[in-house]
This record gives sequence, structure tokens and C-alpha cells, in this order.
Amino acid sequence: MISRRMQKMVAANSVIRAMFEEGLKLAKEYGRENVYDFSLGNPNVPAPEALKKAAIKILQEEDPVKVHGYMPNAGFPTVREKIALSINKRFATDFSASNIIMTVGAAGGLNIALKALLNPGDEVITFAPFFGEYKNYVANFDGELVVVPPNTETFQPDLSAFRELIRPQTKAVIINSPNNPTGVVYSEETIKRLSAILEDKQKEFATSIYLISDEPYRELVYGGATVPYLTKYYRNTLVGYSYSKSLSIPGERLGYVVVPSEVDDFEQLFQAMTVANRILGFVNSPSLMQLAVAECLEEKTDIAYYDRNRETLYLGLTKLGFSCVKPEGAFYLFMKTPIEDDSAFSQAAKKFNILVVPGSAFGCPGFVRIAYCVAYETIVNSLPKFAELAKLYEL
Amino acid sequence: MISRRMQKMVAANSVIRAMFEEGLKLAKEYGRENVYDFSLGNPNVPAPEALKKAAIKILQEEDPVKVHGYMPNAGFPTVREKIALSINKRFATDFSASNIIMTVGAAGGLNIALKALLNPGDEVITFAPFFGEYKNYVANFDGELVVVPPNTETFQPDLSAFRELIRPQTKAVIINSPNNPTGVVYSEETIKRLSAILEDKQKEFATSIYLISDEPYRELVYGGATVPYLTKYYRNTLVGYSYSKSLSIPGERLGYVVVPSEVDDFEQLFQAMTVANRILGFVNSPSLMQLAVAECLEEKTDIAYYDRNRETLYLGLTKLGFSCVKPEGAFYLFMKTPIEDDSAFSQAAKKFNILVVPGSAFGCPGFVRIAYCVAYETIVNSLPKFAELAKLYEL
Repeated sequence: MISRRMQKMVAANSVIRAMFEEGLKLAKEYGRENVYDFSLGNPNVPAPEALKKAAIKILQEEDPVKVHGYMPNAGFPTVREKIALSINKRFATDFSASNIIMTVGAAGGLNIALKALLNPGDEVITFAPFFGEYKNYVANFDGELVVVPPNTETFQPDLSAFRELIRPQTKAVIINSPNNPTGVVYSEETIKRLSAILEDKQKEFATSIYLISDEPYRELVYGGATVPYLTKYYRNTLVGYSYSKSLSIPGERLGYVVVPSEVDDFEQLFQAMTVANRILGFVNSPSLMQLAVAECLEEKTDIAYYDRNRETLYLGLTKLGFSCVKPEGAFYLFMKTPIEDDSAFSQAAKKFNILVVPGSAFGCPGFVRIAYCVAYETIVNSLPKFAELAKLYEL
Repeated sequence: MISRRMQKMVAANSVIRAMFEEGLKLAKEYGRENVYDFSLGNPNVPAPEALKKAAIKILQEEDPVKVHGYMPNAGFPTVREKIALSINKRFATDFSASNIIMTVGAAGGLNIALKALLNPGDEVITFAPFFGEYKNYVANFDGELVVVPPNTETFQPDLSAFRELIRPQTKAVIINSPNNPTGVVYSEETIKRLSAILEDKQKEFATSIYLISDEPYRELVYGGATVPYLTKYYRNTLVGYSYSKSLSIPGERLGYVVVPSEVDDFEQLFQAMTVANRILGFVNSPSLMQLAVAECLEEKTDIAYYDRNRETLYLGLTKLGFSCVKPEGAFYLFMKTPIEDDSAFSQAAKKFNILVVPGSAFGCPGFVRIAYCVAYETIVNSLPKFAELAKLYEL
């Protein structure tokens, strides 16, 4: 009785979410400390104290009619202005409130961008491995997700394959660096080459191809890695950002999209995305959180915490004979499975109460994603279990 | 360059929102006290003190990792259970957490229900006048909104016309009582007749027709009017609720949908709506607000405040010779325009800094909607301006 489209989507329901809900069940059964749930990007680092203080101050001192009321669908102009200035300061850009749309997380931002851009049959390119939801977001608007096959040695994007896949119906390209699920950061050199290819193809086809940079993990980088700000390399760039990971508030649904004034059809696109924010039912991103986060733009999450997790996990797993590219960003580690069948491996891991997500969910079988945004103890205590798992495969 | 669908939607952009944004501009130009902005359902009554206290207590005492983190896409099970019990207590129903999906406002709720139900070309019936966004929500999923013409004498639904419009491709019916824009409450008798018609037609066509009751204004009724709880009258009912008006937090985007266990294909539908919540980019409704509102389920907004506005405005306008049905609920008054062209009348009103929304935006030309959820002073001070407007039309 449910719609045919949703039948497909329910059947292919997020493996990640299924794992997360299974993790909650296992925790009830075995006790939370005996379950090693690496399934979901749900930060274990608490939100900064400053955010709590800002939210309480606003609740205590400001007019509730304003704090909890409607504002323009793109968000509070004052909040958007503060965010624009903060981006300008960090990346020497030149944005103002009129370039920022507050969104219901990065997921909301991607959806309003795609609704504004896609005609049925339009193509959106992304690079495997990729966040599986991209497929659903593009399908929401009857577009086709075209996937560039992974380079499983480095997990840097395969730009030659990319070039071949761009066609006149290519409306957008989604990139995600630091990357979910690999933790790889795309180098400036890569960004320059990717931009040049897009410029070429725009000319060749006389089209506009929008580069959508999905950046929820921008702040999470280790060992001095830097993440280029893409609007400075390619004119038709939209930046989707989220505070879910940078301030550890994924449940609050707060993010924004940057629409630079120089993108093709700027005014029309900005308005269409704002209207899409309303029409898709978001209406606006949550008001109190908009105001609170605007007071915490200089706050940072506890990078050292994730970094320790990363080092301990990477060292632990490689010592056991597992292999993976060392992540430079985000809080994921993408591990090669000792057998080809990544789903079978995940099932085997679950017998040790270890929950990981098969790479197939990211368009990259033969790997599993391990989200290490967990308690340090979870990592330490999981290693003996991983050792038992390694034995199973005679590593 | 933007998608063809969005070109249409941008062109037909919400008159309500355009008025709201114009109101903000006028307020800057003339001073807020000299602008009579009746455009938007943005409550002027502050959120209850209890909500503020609950939010602060949660922020101060609870684990931020839980407060701001991901939870199952349908919402915190504890919150859903509390809401279910509160509904049961009030309406003698029998719901549990497994019947409740927390949503990003009522708008989010309608969108996930429609995404779960509609195949392209399916029809959704509603009654004019209606909240104009229904058209967009249905179009989001390639459905057709079929509109039952208004009965402009009483604004009760025309059930004979309704019966004729139900077809095998009718997948859902949206009703909205207390009604936006008329403030009319549908009587129990109306609900019984409407339910009987739906039962007949389900049998005749061997289909499931879901009745979606959009209830953001349930708590706002005056003079002892009662609003029947529709799941008790018709089996295939979904109830969409929002705390936007009942707790004056429209900017926070918090609502829920009730999916009773007895609806056709319950499990499939519940799952599809939960997956739709994720896939459309909502992911979940905002976490802190879920927890805070769950502590305030017995709170009521200041009905007396709205009631005084209602009486003053209704009396003032009818004295001036304007005519309208006296609203029994919500915070809207739907006034007949003295000339046929409601847009021209709205423009004329704007010259007196009075902002109202043409009835055409609700599928009912010849009327304007006046949102009286404003400061009492705005109503009082607007009446001399309405008097000048009346003179223009020789009332």
C-alpha cells in the first residue's frame, strides 16, 4: 500500500541506521559496556560548555517570542551575517548574510540544493566510497546518482574516470572531504584538477555544473592536514555545512549552505533553495539553536579526543593484521575485510558484539566502516574482540 | 537554470511569506508599532515559562551527548511514550510509543506521510479554503491536490461535493480543523458524515483512503467548542500535530504524527514514514526540544489572550461594516472583501500599513485572512486604519 518509491527505499533501508538500532538493543541485552558500537557518526564528545551557556543565557534573557518564533525561511539575518563573517575571517572569502541559508543539518541543505537544481533524469556525480544517503537525496527529485569507482589504494578520487562520466545532463557533483567513510582528505592538488575538469566540461557542454561540497567533517582533521575552501577554486560551488560533528549536536539538526554571489543564476538559485526549505517542510532550521550556535562560532570540539581514538584504533587493528588507509580527518576508519564479503564479515563481527557498517553501504564492498567517535574505553576494550575476530580469519 | 518544478513554485511563492518579509521591511521603515502585520501565524503569546525551565534544567543536568545526540529517526522512545500516554488520557485512545513519529513540525509530518503514501498521479483531496502549502506538499511527491469548493456561507466542508470527487486514485484526504484560514471548527456530525463517506468509498473501490488530520490548532478553541479526535471515527486516520501554536514555538520545528496500529498496512507505513523522515533530510525532530516539550505536555498557551483579540477584532470589523464568519478556533479571521478582487483589496490595505493575506492563496478568492495572533495593541490600533479602509469602499 505504501508508494512504490518508498517500497524500494525501505527495502534498501540504511544499513547504518539498522545497525544503530540493533546496537541499542544489544546494549540493553549485554550492557552498554559490553557492546562495541561503531555503527553511527554520533559523537561521544560532549557539546562545548559554551554552547550550553549560550543556550541558557538566551532562554533566560531574550524575548521568547523572538527566540522560538518564525523568522525568514533562510534563517535569522543576524545569525547568517555572523556565520558569513566567521567564514570570511577563516578563509578570506567575501560572503554576507545574503549568501547563507540556515538548514536542518547538512542533510536538509543537500536536499534543498538538489530540489532547486534537478529536473527528472538529471545526473549527479559522486565518488565511491560515498555516504549512502546521497543516492536517496538525488532520487527524492528523480535524479540519477552516477558513481565514480573507488581507488581502493589511496581513496583519493579517480579524476580520469570522473572526466569520462561528465555529460550534458550532469547538473551537480557532490564531494565530501574529509570523507565519510574513509577519513581521507582531498589535497589542494586534487581540488585544482577537479575544478579544471569541471571548467572544461562546462565550456564543452555550455552548461552549469554545480559542485556541492558536503562538509560536516571540515573541522575534524589530524596531523596538520588542511581542507581547501572550495569556493576559492571553482566558481559554481555550493558549500553544505553542519554543526552536528563540529559542535557535537547531530540531534539538533543545524547546518547551513553557502551560495556564493558569483554562482550562475545566483538570485534565482538562492530564492529557489529558500522556497524549497519551506516547501519540503523544514520551513527553517531550529530557532533557539540558530541563536545559540551563532554565539559559539569560534568553539572547537575536542579534536585530541578523536585523535587518540584514531591512533589507538589504527595501531591496534594494523597490529592485528587488518589493513586500512590511515584516516586524516572525520572520525571514520575504512578497513579492508579479510574476506571479500563485507556483509558476512560484519555479521561475524556482530557475534563479538562489534558493530561496523559494510562498505557496500557506501558503494565500496570489501571494506567496513568503523566510526571511532565513541568512548576511548570502547576502543580499548574492543581490541581483544577484534583480536578474536582476526583469529577467525587466520590473520 | 533552476529546475522547472521549482520555477513554478518560486513563481507561485507563498503570498503569506512574501507579506511577512514585507512586514519586516515596513516595520523598519515606519516603526513596528505603526505596522499592522496580520500576515503570519507567528504567535505573539510567549512560550510557557515551564518550557523555558524544562529546557534550562535539561541543559544543566542531563548528559549533553544524549540531549543533543542522534536518537532513532522516529524520536526518543521515552518522549514518544509520554506523548502517547498524554493523548490516551485526553481522548481515551490506546496509543504507545510505537504509534508516534516525532517530526519537524506539522509540515514535516505531512511531508513524510505523503512521501510514504503517494505514487505519481495519486490524488489527495482537501477542502477550500485550505493552507496553500498542501498544494506544494502533494506536488513534492508528484501527486495531485483535488480541491472541494468552499461553502462560503458557513465554511463547513461541502460533503456532497466531496463524495463526488473521491475516485479510485484518491490516496488521502487532508482536513484541518480548527481551520486555517477560517477559524471554523468541524462539528462531530460533520466528522461522522465524512467518515461514513470514506468508508463507503473504500468499499466501493476496494482501496485504502487515509484521512490526514492536520491539527496544529487543536488547542486553540473558544467559547467551549470541541474538536473530535478523528482516529475514533475513522480507522485509516493519521493525525499530524505541532507544538508551534500550542506552545508558541513555531521556529523550533517540533511536531509528531500519530499512526494508529489499526490503519491498513500499519507496520509498513510506520516504517516508510520513519525512513522518509531520514531520507527527506529531516533525520529526526530537534532533540533538546523533544526532551523539553515532553516535560510540558500539560501546559496550555494563553487562550484568553487570543480570545480577547478575536472578540475585539470581530466586533471592530463587523461594526465597520465588514463581514465574516465568527471564528471558533485557531487565530485567524477570514473576512469577506468588499470588492471581488482580494489581491487589490490587500494592496489597498497595505497603503494603511495593514498586512493581510488574499483568500486566493487559500483557494478562496473574495476574502482575506487576518492572523490575530498579534499584540492586543496591534488590533486596537489597527481599527482606525480599518475604518479608513472601510470608507474607501463606502461601507
